[in-house]
Amino acid sequence: MSSAQPAFIGVDWGTSSFRAYLVDARGGLIEQIGSDRGILSIAPGAHEGVLAGAVAPWKDADPTLPIVMSGMIGARQGWIEAPYANCPAGVAEIAAAVVTIPTQRLGRISLAPGVSRVDAHGGPDVMRGEETQILGALAALKARAGLFVLPGTHSKWARVEDGRIMSFASYMTGEVFAALKDHTILGRLMSGAGAQGEGFAQGVGAAARLERPGDLLHAIFMTRTLGLFDRLGPDQLADYLSGLLVGAELLAGARGAASAVVIGSPSLTARYCKAGELLGLRLTPAPDNCVLLGQFALLERL
Amino acid sequence: MSSAQPAFIGVDWGTSSFRAYLVDARGGLIEQIGSDRGILSIAPGAHEGVLAGAVAPWKDADPTLPIVMSGMIGARQGWIEAPYANCPAGVAEIAAAVVTIPTQRLGRISLAPGVSRVDAHGGPDVMRGEETQILGALAALKARAGLFVLPGTHSKWARVEDGRIMSFASYMTGEVFAALKDHTILGRLMSGAGAQGEGFAQGVGAAARLERPGDLLHAIFMTRTLGLFDRLGPDQLADYLSGLLVGAELLAGARGAASAVVIGSPSLTARYCKAGELLGLRLTPAPDNCVLLGQFALLERL
Repeated sequence: MSSAQPAFIGVDWGTSSFRAYLVDARGGLIEQIGSDRGILSIAPGAHEGVLAGAVAPWKDADPTLPIVMSGMIGARQGWIEAPYANCPAGVAEIAAAVVTIPTQRLGRISLAPGVSRVDAHGGPDVMRGEETQILGALAALKARAGLFVLPGTHSKWARVEDGRIMSFASYMTGEVFAALKDHTILGRLMSGAGAQGEGFAQGVGAAARLERPGDLLHAIFMTRTLGLFDRLGPDQLADYLSGLLVGAELLAGARGAASAVVIGSPSLTARYCKAGELLGLRLTPAPDNCVLLGQFALLERL
Repeated sequence: MSSAQPAFIGVDWGTSSFRAYLVDARGGLIEQIGSDRGILSIAPGAHEGVLAGAVAPWKDADPTLPIVMSGMIGARQGWIEAPYANCPAGVAEIAAAVVTIPTQRLGRISLAPGVSRVDAHGGPDVMRGEETQILGALAALKARAGLFVLPGTHSKWARVEDGRIMSFASYMTGEVFAALKDHTILGRLMSGAGAQGEGFAQGVGAAARLERPGDLLHAIFMTRTLGLFDRLGPDQLADYLSGLLVGAELLAGARGAASAVVIGSPSLTARYCKAGELLGLRLTPAPDNCVLLGQFALLERL
């Protein structure tokens, strides 16, 4: 935590959680608050009141503090829909697409847009919040190029050149894992959660042996047969499935690259780094405060 | 329907449904009954009573009629667990593994085993019921070799040579589809069910363009973005996802073969044949009564 002078308030408002940060002029964290008041729990028109209540102590101390928001709060089901910036998108393009929300109690609030992309076959893809984290990672690493992975419910893999996100793709790894574990026959044999043990390594190994895309549907089913035939204990089956899906995502997202930067929670980052080790892909964790650094970089451009 | 002399009673007792058939000496159907009393709804020890009640009219008319059962009724959670026959397995090997259940009211009942297989990396796979359908298809088609696909919750692809199932693999297509549709964000944009229209063709096309196995996790996510960006209507999104998964399964299961025989319900068979057409894979529907013909082939060997 920094004890420096506050420079802005950063807000990371997602689907199921709310987080606000008091940040200094170097992007350092001074103080933070959080709650489970994600955007899905907020009635239309109630956003300003919720935010004002949460950041009141900071705003009372300094009413001039600017507020920068990023994440799903800018989605259609959020406060105000912020149209996507299109790839290629760097800090200049993303800052140019920032939406300003006028409020009665908090002054003007800056809302980062998401970034969208259309692939060679006309297929669209989107991110919201991750673009700001990538800008922060670039600032922290003093980098202008690289491959970035943001693991999660809908993992993102983004290729950055000359400071701009050139292309990216989403992989539904986290949500597919949860749906298969909780809502198919696979969960019936699972018990407990192993911690990246034998099951995880076997799953990553199975991912590396897949020959055709549809083979993934076969390897997923093997979560059941490996359990039925006692090849893996009940506490290793969820980890097999996790290793299989994460491994398949890594091999597809990296597309032969030798290294990438991971931006994510410590536990997910560790899981991805472990899979990367097993597959010969060098994954380096990004610094913790990428969101704040990214919001700070946007604020400097407004 | 045949009006010939009854030769045996065939029972296809699955997880969620019960079906019994009165069959003539050429495997022809004389009469059939069915109910929703699948094995998951039957208490231990209650199987004989349920079956006796269902087939009483037939047995009363001819108490000597043999009964042959196949399907999940031979699984661990069924009546009696019938150990798997190992690949390669033809009618001789499967008949040799038939379990005989002694009963008080129905005499001795024959229970077909499932078939198991271990792949080159020690990964096990299983089928239960499909082996009997494959034997029936071989009999109906007077064939001793071919590639067979049995679409469903856990689709099976089996390679038959010289009358024996040499190898097979399961693909969790149907259950993955249901879990993604009903238990992820993908279902939120879906409404209604298109009938193999534009969405299905787009999904099959996307499957054909997948380069790496993990790309499937990306193409699954596109079910959402194609809807968000109005590239597909809400009534086409479930069909996109279906086409994607079925297409990926076909390309993996066929492994470059030019043709295969489909054994399944008319609606699933039509769906698979349509995907096959789009992918240049010739799929031919098997005759309807493969289960009975397979049970009859086993009965002849007992």
